[in-house]
Amino acid sequence: MRRVNIELLAHRWAALRNACSDQPLNRLLYDCLRVAVLDGSLAAGVRLPASRDLAREFALARNTVMHAYAQLTAEGYLSTLTGSGTYVASVLPERSQQPAPVHLRAPGASAGRATGSALSVRGQALAGEPRASVSHWGAFVPGVPDVTEFPHRRFAQLLARWQRHAPPEWRSYVSGGGHPALRAALVEHLRETRSVHCEPDQIVIAEGSHQAIDLVTRLMADANDLAWVEEPGYWGLRGLLEINGLRVRGIPVDSEGMAPRSSDWEQAPRLVFVTPSHQYPLGSVMSLRRRLDLLEQARRHDSWIVEDDYDSEFRYAGRPIAALQGLRPDARVIYIGTFSKTAYPGLRIAYLVLPHELASAFRAAYPQLYRQGNLATQAALAEFMQQGHYASHVRRMRLIYAARRAALLALIERHLGPGWVHPCDSPAGLHLVLRLPDGVDDLRVKSLVAQSGVIVRALSDYCGERGSMSGLLLGFAGISEPRMLAPFQALVTAIRQAGTN
Amino acid sequence: MRRVNIELLAHRWAALRNACSDQPLNRLLYDCLRVAVLDGSLAAGVRLPASRDLAREFALARNTVMHAYAQLTAEGYLSTLTGSGTYVASVLPERSQQPAPVHLRAPGASAGRATGSALSVRGQALAGEPRASVSHWGAFVPGVPDVTEFPHRRFAQLLARWQRHAPPEWRSYVSGGGHPALRAALVEHLRETRSVHCEPDQIVIAEGSHQAIDLVTRLMADANDLAWVEEPGYWGLRGLLEINGLRVRGIPVDSEGMAPRSSDWEQAPRLVFVTPSHQYPLGSVMSLRRRLDLLEQARRHDSWIVEDDYDSEFRYAGRPIAALQGLRPDARVIYIGTFSKTAYPGLRIAYLVLPHELASAFRAAYPQLYRQGNLATQAALAEFMQQGHYASHVRRMRLIYAARRAALLALIERHLGPGWVHPCDSPAGLHLVLRLPDGVDDLRVKSLVAQSGVIVRALSDYCGERGSMSGLLLGFAGISEPRMLAPFQALVTAIRQAGTN
Repeated sequence: MRRVNIELLAHRWAALRNACSDQPLNRLLYDCLRVAVLDGSLAAGVRLPASRDLAREFALARNTVMHAYAQLTAEGYLSTLTGSGTYVASVLPERSQQPAPVHLRAPGASAGRATGSALSVRGQALAGEPRASVSHWGAFVPGVPDVTEFPHRRFAQLLARWQRHAPPEWRSYVSGGGHPALRAALVEHLRETRSVHCEPDQIVIAEGSHQAIDLVTRLMADANDLAWVEEPGYWGLRGLLEINGLRVRGIPVDSEGMAPRSSDWEQAPRLVFVTPSHQYPLGSVMSLRRRLDLLEQARRHDSWIVEDDYDSEFRYAGRPIAALQGLRPDARVIYIGTFSKTAYPGLRIAYLVLPHELASAFRAAYPQLYRQGNLATQAALAEFMQQGHYASHVRRMRLIYAARRAALLALIERHLGPGWVHPCDSPAGLHLVLRLPDGVDDLRVKSLVAQSGVIVRALSDYCGERGSMSGLLLGFAGISEPRMLAPFQALVTAIRQAGTN
Repeated sequence: MRRVNIELLAHRWAALRNACSDQPLNRLLYDCLRVAVLDGSLAAGVRLPASRDLAREFALARNTVMHAYAQLTAEGYLSTLTGSGTYVASVLPERSQQPAPVHLRAPGASAGRATGSALSVRGQALAGEPRASVSHWGAFVPGVPDVTEFPHRRFAQLLARWQRHAPPEWRSYVSGGGHPALRAALVEHLRETRSVHCEPDQIVIAEGSHQAIDLVTRLMADANDLAWVEEPGYWGLRGLLEINGLRVRGIPVDSEGMAPRSSDWEQAPRLVFVTPSHQYPLGSVMSLRRRLDLLEQARRHDSWIVEDDYDSEFRYAGRPIAALQGLRPDARVIYIGTFSKTAYPGLRIAYLVLPHELASAFRAAYPQLYRQGNLATQAALAEFMQQGHYASHVRRMRLIYAARRAALLALIERHLGPGWVHPCDSPAGLHLVLRLPDGVDDLRVKSLVAQSGVIVRALSDYCGERGSMSGLLLGFAGISEPRMLAPFQALVTAIRQAGTN
């Protein structure tokens, strides 16, 4: 199989990047590869490096490479064989005129898809390299609570009653922000546990955090608006922003949370997505100094902060971290919470807490975009909260998870030694991050340990444009202490194996 | 209150339209209004016509006007007072340089929102004039089945069992196209009742048709790609396409369904959305001639047909209309079906049937975009189908709805006379369309009859760029014969009242 001459390509890339430093990297990379195909330096049939490798080589975000590959594939310059990689197409598109990238295309200009390509460019980028795991249960799947400990029998009883006796209005299409009783219960819960201050009208119930993020993105930002995300951060967020046409910039995270430099604000973002109470995935808590600064800068630049408070009910030491939302009465914050971690993900209930000025627009737009339903489930959940079952379930799980976390930390200390846990870690949440020694590729560990049926996630999958970090996300919530040893030993073996070849 | 000089504006509009016939109407209207504000012919404080009125006056789609208003509001030329209308702003934006419309903006260019405007331009267009009814139950809400007739007790029993005994994997995040048993049951059902031919792997379960349409739009089309919709057609579809950046063109409907001229194909669409079995809202059945032509043209132009088969289980005379999907083995058709009409809308379950070549990409992309859950509900529904409850429920409802439809037709004949039912009507579905005499405004009837607690929908709300049709959508499915008379009399009174002033 012919391979690409990577040095030549890197040389060209450096030259192009120097010459056109004002151009978006996306576009530059597209140009660089396209010209190389047209002038034959990338010959037909040659296999391109994996997007991850080219990203490392060129010091680019993997997403940037994926988008360039997708665009060129769509236009017929490259072709993709499932499971086998990306190749230079043997029959090149006829037109020699350079088609503009999607975001520069004039309205009315026809899209640059090749005839054979069925998916859109954005669709290819999304479907081409899915990062969602196939399995979401078992040791050491991160981000998933112990769904077997939820009182399903009790909840099923409540639900069955509402299912049988719901008024017809609930079974039809529904408008408004979700079930009033659930919103009222959330107001109480959020005030007591999260220092979030709101009234029921400010809450909109959504079918999961993804939908909540999608709604915020569409209602608050237009195509080409800039969004900041944490780096490393949740990969699913970046995908949602990009499919909605936003430009995404990763801002590094340290032990005090997202750390923008003041010069970063010269290009102020429309939206800033943060996980201040428990940074995902590293675990830092955003310091008060950074919080106040973020609120102030957002006010000054008309930016909106989206606070994703995904798992902060689970903090195992010290006081709970108060949400950004309640820190100042005029905070430009949209707060997102979810029942996926405190109850179970399959429930598909999350919620937004909106500033007064935005609430009615969100309530109006929600049914236009998604329709609404599942009110019986919302009513059952409200009752579950009102009767105190929810609070006691969270309290109980907090003790269970604290013990599991301690057990995993003990295994790490005993079998690997000190210094392996990421320094940003804080005693909270459903997973912790293991740092890997230099030269140990986290993706290799992930695939080695998967052969023993153990699921971990690679930290490098959470890195965007700032280069890669090698580490593993280990979920401890779903596995009891006695069952932890065997999969952990498999993990240790995989780490050693990955380090030796 | 100062009013706009509409004749002057109309004169300018005609001149501009003549001079720039190649420009998008969107952009032209924006320019026309903006220049009028800047040169003072639209003075500060003047109230603009309602978007509907200006659309009629200028022979434009109401959406076009709404977008222009939203853009100018975002840029500070206009301001909106909730419930009161749109006014020329008193403090104009300082920059005199003309900002480009959203779709022409270069990446990196800052958005044209005014400082005070919190929502995005696309968000304002969506939230600004919501068309979803506040109430979705009662006489004569269209598009809603009789949710009280569904065997909720039986379904709640099945559901409760699955809720209690679901394996942990179902309660976590889920990948794949939805519950295998439900997909298998759908394959059977679709083959028997809809002549749809597929395998379980071709089915992806979604949380409602809106989500299914959103998924197709994002995966199959990029920003500025062209989509055809039926005119009149479902307003919610247009909103979904536009928020995903597509250009939308309405193609007129006649008694044989969507009727594109062959010249229309010169600008071939990426996606064609049709309701061939029962056109929504008029009721025509697409003729075989049109079906074969549409399939052939789509093949020739690399277009994809999206067949929304929302209520064709309910046909009260003649043979069921076979779906487009099964008409030819190589049909470029993505089929969307829903349980909202056959079970109840609050269930939030719909499904896509995809060609083999697209299925795996859709399965991969779905969890990336939306996450997945509610597998217990899907399992319960599968069992409900396997045990024959679903088919017998649909059979039973078909008889009930046929009787209700006949009763409503009899009321129309008796109280209004012949010729009131729209000529495209066919004996199917959950609503019928009443034509209103010249000079009777459907929106006025809708608001008059709403005072008696009767809900109808105005046909003009379903019209886009091709000018308005005056008529009413009357849902007959949710109201039993004996309870039909009083609301119908209120309707007749409202129609007479609207005709006299």
